Amino acid sequence: MRDHVYPRGIPLGGDWREYVAAMAAQPTETLRDLLEDNDLPGLQGWLAEHQPYEVADEIARADAVHAVLLFRLLDKERALTVFEELDPTDQQKVLSGLREPAFRDVVERMAPDDRARLLGEAPAKFARHVLAGLSPREREYTAALLGYPEHSVGRYMTPETVAVRHHMSADEALAVVRRKGADAETVYTLPVIDDRRCFLGTVSLRDLVLSAPESPVAEIADADAPQVRATADVEEAARLMQDTNVLALPVTDSENRVLGLLTIDDAFEVIEAADTEDIARQSGSTPWAGHYMSASVVELARARAVWLLLLILAATLTVNVLQVFEDTLASVTALALFIPLLVGTGGNAGAQAATAAVRALAVGEVRTRDVLRVAWRECRVGLVLGAMLAAVALVIGTLLVDVTVAASVAVSLVAVCAWAATIGSTMPLLAKRVGIDPAVISAPLVTTLVDATGLIIYFLVARLVFGL
Amino acid sequence: MRDHVYPRGIPLGGDWREYVAAMAAQPTETLRDLLEDNDLPGLQGWLAEHQPYEVADEIARADAVHAVLLFRLLDKERALTVFEELDPTDQQKVLSGLREPAFRDVVERMAPDDRARLLGEAPAKFARHVLAGLSPREREYTAALLGYPEHSVGRYMTPETVAVRHHMSADEALAVVRRKGADAETVYTLPVIDDRRCFLGTVSLRDLVLSAPESPVAEIADADAPQVRATADVEEAARLMQDTNVLALPVTDSENRVLGLLTIDDAFEVIEAADTEDIARQSGSTPWAGHYMSASVVELARARAVWLLLLILAATLTVNVLQVFEDTLASVTALALFIPLLVGTGGNAGAQAATAAVRALAVGEVRTRDVLRVAWRECRVGLVLGAMLAAVALVIGTLLVDVTVAASVAVSLVAVCAWAATIGSTMPLLAKRVGIDPAVISAPLVTTLVDATGLIIYFLVARLVFGL
Repeated sequence: MRDHVYPRGIPLGGDWREYVAAMAAQPTETLRDLLEDNDLPGLQGWLAEHQPYEVADEIARADAVHAVLLFRLLDKERALTVFEELDPTDQQKVLSGLREPAFRDVVERMAPDDRARLLGEAPAKFARHVLAGLSPREREYTAALLGYPEHSVGRYMTPETVAVRHHMSADEALAVVRRKGADAETVYTLPVIDDRRCFLGTVSLRDLVLSAPESPVAEIADADAPQVRATADVEEAARLMQDTNVLALPVTDSENRVLGLLTIDDAFEVIEAADTEDIARQSGSTPWAGHYMSASVVELARARAVWLLLLILAATLTVNVLQVFEDTLASVTALALFIPLLVGTGGNAGAQAATAAVRALAVGEVRTRDVLRVAWRECRVGLVLGAMLAAVALVIGTLLVDVTVAASVAVSLVAVCAWAATIGSTMPLLAKRVGIDPAVISAPLVTTLVDATGLIIYFLVARLVFGL
Repeated sequence: MRDHVYPRGIPLGGDWREYVAAMAAQPTETLRDLLEDNDLPGLQGWLAEHQPYEVADEIARADAVHAVLLFRLLDKERALTVFEELDPTDQQKVLSGLREPAFRDVVERMAPDDRARLLGEAPAKFARHVLAGLSPREREYTAALLGYPEHSVGRYMTPETVAVRHHMSADEALAVVRRKGADAETVYTLPVIDDRRCFLGTVSLRDLVLSAPESPVAEIADADAPQVRATADVEEAARLMQDTNVLALPVTDSENRVLGLLTIDDAFEVIEAADTEDIARQSGSTPWAGHYMSASVVELARARAVWLLLLILAATLTVNVLQVFEDTLASVTALALFIPLLVGTGGNAGAQAATAAVRALAVGEVRTRDVLRVAWRECRVGLVLGAMLAAVALVIGTLLVDVTVAASVAVSLVAVCAWAATIGSTMPLLAKRVGIDPAVISAPLVTTLVDATGLIIYFLVARLVFGL
């Protein structure tokens, strides 16, 4: 949907389709031409006409050489803004091409949480190089964040926060914000702490501004404000922020002392990245961090190869099943005609149920202890759908082949759909219960498993119908 | 992931797995029992012990009668907080069970944008009932928002904003915030306007607080701040907020006058809802608005029936294809053994490519004009994967059946994978180009289409190999 990246100067309005059309008329081809011609004045003109996030998008799409070329043409202030918009993978791509002083400067000026995420994903040699170039204060911040496990809140929080004491007045708290606010990532949610730096609640800058200057912070603070431990899972913390509609979530250590804040823009990114990963897993791909357009053929193939291999091995089960029923198949060749239709439909019904269950788990609508209720409901859904499809298959099968084959297909469809929906919906819940990411129960996995069992059902039914 | 819904009093910390375990020990079963026993003191105790968002979650899971029962037990302030956390579908469920004075009170106190979204999805009769009960001021706000098309920014913006004039000083602007801020949804991003209410940029409350009191707003404002028209697509606007890391996006009319703000929590919800819809579509289901656990069997079946029907009709193509090759099949029955493996693998490769392309389009990494580059890359990815799978199939096929059949399968796999990846990745881009939601190109649709063509490839190859 990045087609909406609005060229500056084109007013953002009217029908939104208008700017999609306007964009189509302004091709990126121009930029690619400028890069290939190494046309520096042209590139500078292009950069001056685009917003930082548009530049970041082009850097993400470009290869390493062009990305560095574009980045080096930015003036210092814009370069930092653009850099902050990049994903860690693209940040590394740019940094690897910079000379020492520029490299150090960019790294030193990054926010500690962004830096920790970059280093967490980078090779060890690169990480050491970065850490060596930092000032002691920034190195200490980063080392502290890197001490937290991957995917924990600690990796994503900003340690540069302004906390206020519970005994202050609104006016005194505002004075603290004025004094220390310039260095903090956000000043809209302020943790309220006691003399031991323990978390007592939060107060919003809005309430500080709107309250009478002498009001005690303890009174206007929200003592029920949610908080998380730095070791907590960051995706769960992000969902908690979404549920409670807060702009920042205080992060504490095991002794309830405030360590930092998880801000909503980071939570937003965490959820989007989690959704992208879930979607990739749901199609049987390994998630990877980079930009789709800058991934190489080998990278794309690698992300998909493992599951395709596992699935083709699982699919040999279908060969075994068919071998068992080879006699039935040889005596009624017409049965073979409906194999793709039958296993395909079963696979689709299973994929629908699996996808619904994985998503419901991800957004918190289903819990693992709901497994029996889910199984019973989905089994009935499968029966209803199977009956409907059976009626269609009976008509089609009779018209195309004959009524006995059609009857076998129809009866099998009811059983296969009920089975597929039940298996597809419960497997993600069971996976989660035993500690496996439910998104691993992908549509292709369910399809492949349902294929073999569907064939068994089909041939058993056919033997009965044909009296074999 | 709502397993993380932390019971109050349990400290949020240590390993996050700890509270998942803690939650498993605190079953919702208790609440269900309390509801079924109509145990009012018990329910009041439960409500007192849980946070508003936890109560909202239980109301979303409950049927209409229990949802209303729970809601009516809340005191007035908490009731509103809980109500705001509900989705429009669940809000309607609760409202329909309230008596007139409570109904009017809740509706009157809702934020105008939430109310507009509720009414936009509700039946006309219900909507008229709500509008009739509103005060003139709130009715006017809501009617204005309802005037914008569905899925437009206008439906989601908050009209209750504090704007400041460009000629003010920071101190004067802060005075405006103090005077009018109590009614506004947010005061952290303030649109800066001229005397004709035209948008000039934004100023953050942070900058107002941190600047010297006499600094002119015009100087500390961000004149490059992004903005959108009220008629723009809300998902695009939400992605723009994500790209530019703003907490609120000013919304303007066609004459550039400020109408309101789109806030980040609404943008967050829009993106999550869009992801949920895309995921449902990707599995060949029609998205529906409700909670998974409160949906009935009929509702779930309806969301899936249309696509299953279309897909089974498309799958009759495979029957036709097999009929054409029935002679080949009759003379080499062993070919039938590999049909599910071959079409399954082709389908998986196509589904992976389609899912990657749909997601890359959704997050803006791919544009429709990239179609040729994408096709060429994915074709090569398919060839690489196909070659790898062919090697595996050659071994398995030779062991299980014989080398001629295995060779037919292996050669077909290379062609089928390349074809599936190319088709799967380009179809979403082409769909978008002609104005169809790319997520409609679901994995099951690609799988079904690839099935028929895969069979043609397989039998043509087999005829060559067997010299038929």
